[in-house]
Amino acid sequence: MSERRPRILSGVQPSGELHLGNYFGAIAQHVRLQDEGDAFYFIADYHALTTVHDAERLAALTRDVAATYLALGLDPQKATFFRQSDVPEVHELTWMLECVTGMGLLERAHSYKDKVAKGIHPSVGLFTYPALMASDILIYQADLVPVGQDQVQHIEMCQDMAQSFNSRFGRRERDAEGVERVVGPLKRPEYKLSPTPKVPGTDGQKMSKSYGNTIPIFASGKRLKKAVNSIVTDSRDPKREPLDPDACNAFAIYALLHDEDEVAALAEQYRRAPEVGFLGYGVTKKAIIERMQERFGPARERYEALKRPGSELDDVLREGALRARAVARETIAACRQATGLGPLLSA
Amino acid sequence: MSERRPRILSGVQPSGELHLGNYFGAIAQHVRLQDEGDAFYFIADYHALTTVHDAERLAALTRDVAATYLALGLDPQKATFFRQSDVPEVHELTWMLECVTGMGLLERAHSYKDKVAKGIHPSVGLFTYPALMASDILIYQADLVPVGQDQVQHIEMCQDMAQSFNSRFGRRERDAEGVERVVGPLKRPEYKLSPTPKVPGTDGQKMSKSYGNTIPIFASGKRLKKAVNSIVTDSRDPKREPLDPDACNAFAIYALLHDEDEVAALAEQYRRAPEVGFLGYGVTKKAIIERMQERFGPARERYEALKRPGSELDDVLREGALRARAVARETIAACRQATGLGPLLSA
Repeated sequence: MSERRPRILSGVQPSGELHLGNYFGAIAQHVRLQDEGDAFYFIADYHALTTVHDAERLAALTRDVAATYLALGLDPQKATFFRQSDVPEVHELTWMLECVTGMGLLERAHSYKDKVAKGIHPSVGLFTYPALMASDILIYQADLVPVGQDQVQHIEMCQDMAQSFNSRFGRRERDAEGVERVVGPLKRPEYKLSPTPKVPGTDGQKMSKSYGNTIPIFASGKRLKKAVNSIVTDSRDPKREPLDPDACNAFAIYALLHDEDEVAALAEQYRRAPEVGFLGYGVTKKAIIERMQERFGPARERYEALKRPGSELDDVLREGALRARAVARETIAACRQATGLGPLLSA
Repeated sequence: MSERRPRILSGVQPSGELHLGNYFGAIAQHVRLQDEGDAFYFIADYHALTTVHDAERLAALTRDVAATYLALGLDPQKATFFRQSDVPEVHELTWMLECVTGMGLLERAHSYKDKVAKGIHPSVGLFTYPALMASDILIYQADLVPVGQDQVQHIEMCQDMAQSFNSRFGRRERDAEGVERVVGPLKRPEYKLSPTPKVPGTDGQKMSKSYGNTIPIFASGKRLKKAVNSIVTDSRDPKREPLDPDACNAFAIYALLHDEDEVAALAEQYRRAPEVGFLGYGVTKKAIIERMQERFGPARERYEALKRPGSELDDVLREGALRARAVARETIAACRQATGLGPLLSA
């Protein structure tokens, strides 16, 4: 008898051309985790509706992120990979959760308050987003949700909602020692704080589409050169003075793409630049470009092929959706039973 | 070619044993309207989850209200009669609406503000209720929603949401005169203010379960007598002074149950009580009981039979749900297309 592997759940926003920040912050980790558990990864296209109000763009973004993940090693034999919107049941559970969730819980959400503080005119969807996110997690009976620090509160809200639901609608049972406990249909998920390396953008700020400082994973040729060469560096002259690897954006990006020995060797060159005749930041940038070509070149071809209409992408997402939806329907059936709504009509 | 009849939509809360206030305020009108349009009536069990957190009770309330309507003349050959929760698609549209609805719109809802002002600790479901209500209307492409004055704001919110959705996601077209207009998938509904007669409870306040002053439609025997005899009347002595029909709760209820001539005749007896030897309010109460027996007695038997497990009720609701769901799925398909989510998987 094999023990059930923990179900790991994560959602991916279809937010545009993916860059090194996405790669090292999320994609590489997702690909690694598919070997450590029963991974369920979805493309959060319902969530994207809070910001994307253009049908063609939403469809293209969704296809793009799916192709990127598959090209970079997501294995649909290992992970269940699907579009959020292929499992509309998630909204039914959201409603049930909303009926047992106090307004205060959502009103205390940092990410919502931050957005309002920044002057965003909030939609109802932006406000209820954490309830949909909780439903995304709970409907798949996830054990573990890898998150960054900024998402911890949302997982805690999800835990609260699961508990509220179970305690309102669950059965009270006594265990062997006679201690009463509530058995409800929703599983409380745990979060796993994921190590997210700082990936600087070309201007030194965090790499982010909104800052316009990204290096796209699948850029090539002139476009790649232009992006990498735009990494801001200081004006030290390596012939005259040592360079500081810890203060160099190009070095930081190089470090993400190279192994320990290579990184140590370059650091040494920086620190002893005048002695060893190090030619400067151009060397680092050239190495970044070469390594990106090596590392992402073959994937880029798969990515381009997958993006084409009629590629295997559609089948992969369909297969994933069928698997995910079967789990979701089980959860919904249990929740309908628990609330008294009863079985859903089969037709 | 027959013109399409307007689709009339209304939801019915499963809120407990129905009384004369429900009958004259809603049920009688619903039954009348089934001849005036293509009526879609649903039992709002999803909405009930905002207040009912007991599975058996929710199931019983739902069955009770369905049996009451059918017993009192709702004809499933004329009206599409179904449970809200048999069409879970309604939540998917709710999410789409929430993504194009500003928080301000929901924050201005009177009914929400009133509940908070009364000290209710609001759930998220109570807050987003108008979005679900809008989805209930829009998903069935309703033309007309009969409402009381207190619901007008909710329909206006629904109109706003339909317009927001269409203008964000609709196609821009030019008509024959070259005027641009937006063609979106959602139909703007209109409301119809329904004449809701004031039905006094036994204590003279509005008849309402929450005041404990109701006369149940299907009460009989001692229970009916007790309820009717508890109608509060004044202490005038009909042997010595005239009675005032306009100030008499029993008279007001009598008036709802009797025709014009009968009402005029009783008013005359009140006003000339000493002359004509009118025996007083007991006469009025006895007439109410007799008329209720006549009017609701046969329906009560149907009601009791329909409530039994395995009655035709289940088939009626299933049939209604299939019809309603087919319409809902068309609307959802159009909205998914418009937003870029694309076709739903068939399985």
